[in-house]
Amino acid sequence: MGTAGIDFWFDFASTYSYPAAMRIGALARDDAVTVRFRPFLLGPIFKAQGWTTSPFNLYPAKGRHMWRDLERLCADLKLPFRRPDPFPQNSLLAARVALAGLDEGWGEDFCRAVFRAQFCEECRIDDAGTTSEILAGLKVDPRPALAAAQSDAIKARLRTQTEEAQQRGIFGAPTFTTADGELFWGNDRLEAALRWASSL
Amino acid sequence: MGTAGIDFWFDFASTYSYPAAMRIGALARDDAVTVRFRPFLLGPIFKAQGWTTSPFNLYPAKGRHMWRDLERLCADLKLPFRRPDPFPQNSLLAARVALAGLDEGWGEDFCRAVFRAQFCEECRIDDAGTTSEILAGLKVDPRPALAAAQSDAIKARLRTQTEEAQQRGIFGAPTFTTADGELFWGNDRLEAALRWASSL
Repeated sequence: MGTAGIDFWFDFASTYSYPAAMRIGALARDDAVTVRFRPFLLGPIFKAQGWTTSPFNLYPAKGRHMWRDLERLCADLKLPFRRPDPFPQNSLLAARVALAGLDEGWGEDFCRAVFRAQFCEECRIDDAGTTSEILAGLKVDPRPALAAAQSDAIKARLRTQTEEAQQRGIFGAPTFTTADGELFWGNDRLEAALRWASSL
Repeated sequence: MGTAGIDFWFDFASTYSYPAAMRIGALARDDAVTVRFRPFLLGPIFKAQGWTTSPFNLYPAKGRHMWRDLERLCADLKLPFRRPDPFPQNSLLAARVALAGLDEGWGEDFCRAVFRAQFCEECRIDDAGTTSEILAGLKVDPRPALAAAQSDAIKARLRTQTEEAQQRGIFGAPTFTTADGELFWGNDRLEAALRWASSL
């Protein structure tokens, strides 16, 4: 019998991916589920639905609720939160660096640090300076990490990962998928997804 | 000091309003919160966002997830569930009858029965026959109830209620609002909304 596992699909620009990324480690450990972090890009998926920006910008009432809801949610979870400006931010660089880091053991810490930078420290995650500072904070040499992130292999991997997300029917983030093909969308489905994975 | 209260805004055609309607009574009693049922019509609100039908139909990947998610959710809650066909169904008649019933003490039972008819008994809620059967099952004489539902006063009330929903920033259902103006969208926010209301 194998270990129960879950894939955690997220885009760094996705608001509800922030609490999900901060919560998933401890919750998965409690349920003895292993987690695979799978950064991807929502942009191409939104574009295929006819959206040129976040639906939270396209539908202002929905956006207003989201910001207030996220603020309440973070307060409940005792997670610091400041609304990023601009929103959404281009997450391409962060996603590529994350993929490089996930090969090398510092990927998950990097992911959490990027979410923190964006959602509580008012940093621009599309700025290479922010990325370098985060890497330095993790005691990772920024130059080779950024070079790996810009390699053809990592660029192709992010494209493939995004295509796989789309093929699996992923339309938003965060999304959790299980080995038997179940798909759970939203930070508020994290517990259900873990329960499902651990019952397989 | 008054009693803590919450407004429960829903459209009978809204899928996640079904589990919310079935859960809200017992949960609110546990939190000593009184609930006001506020049926309204999502149609005009969706139209203002440029949608001609449910977003679950407009965005098929989102729709596929919703049906599967609702099925899993109802299984967890031990609520019977069958996918209605067609979807969405016109909820105008049911909303008007509900408003009439909420004045007379049988409104909440009627609401739950309409959700059950649509989401587990494969009935068409836009059919006056279904409505009459539901009323008869509640020992309510269908003729005066249907006449009241079609009165100018009730028609105007439903329009006003829908306008109020829109003015409050409601963009989907179910939505819960509290006396201090907080808005919680989604069945999965019911517990948070009740906690908020009971802390006021």
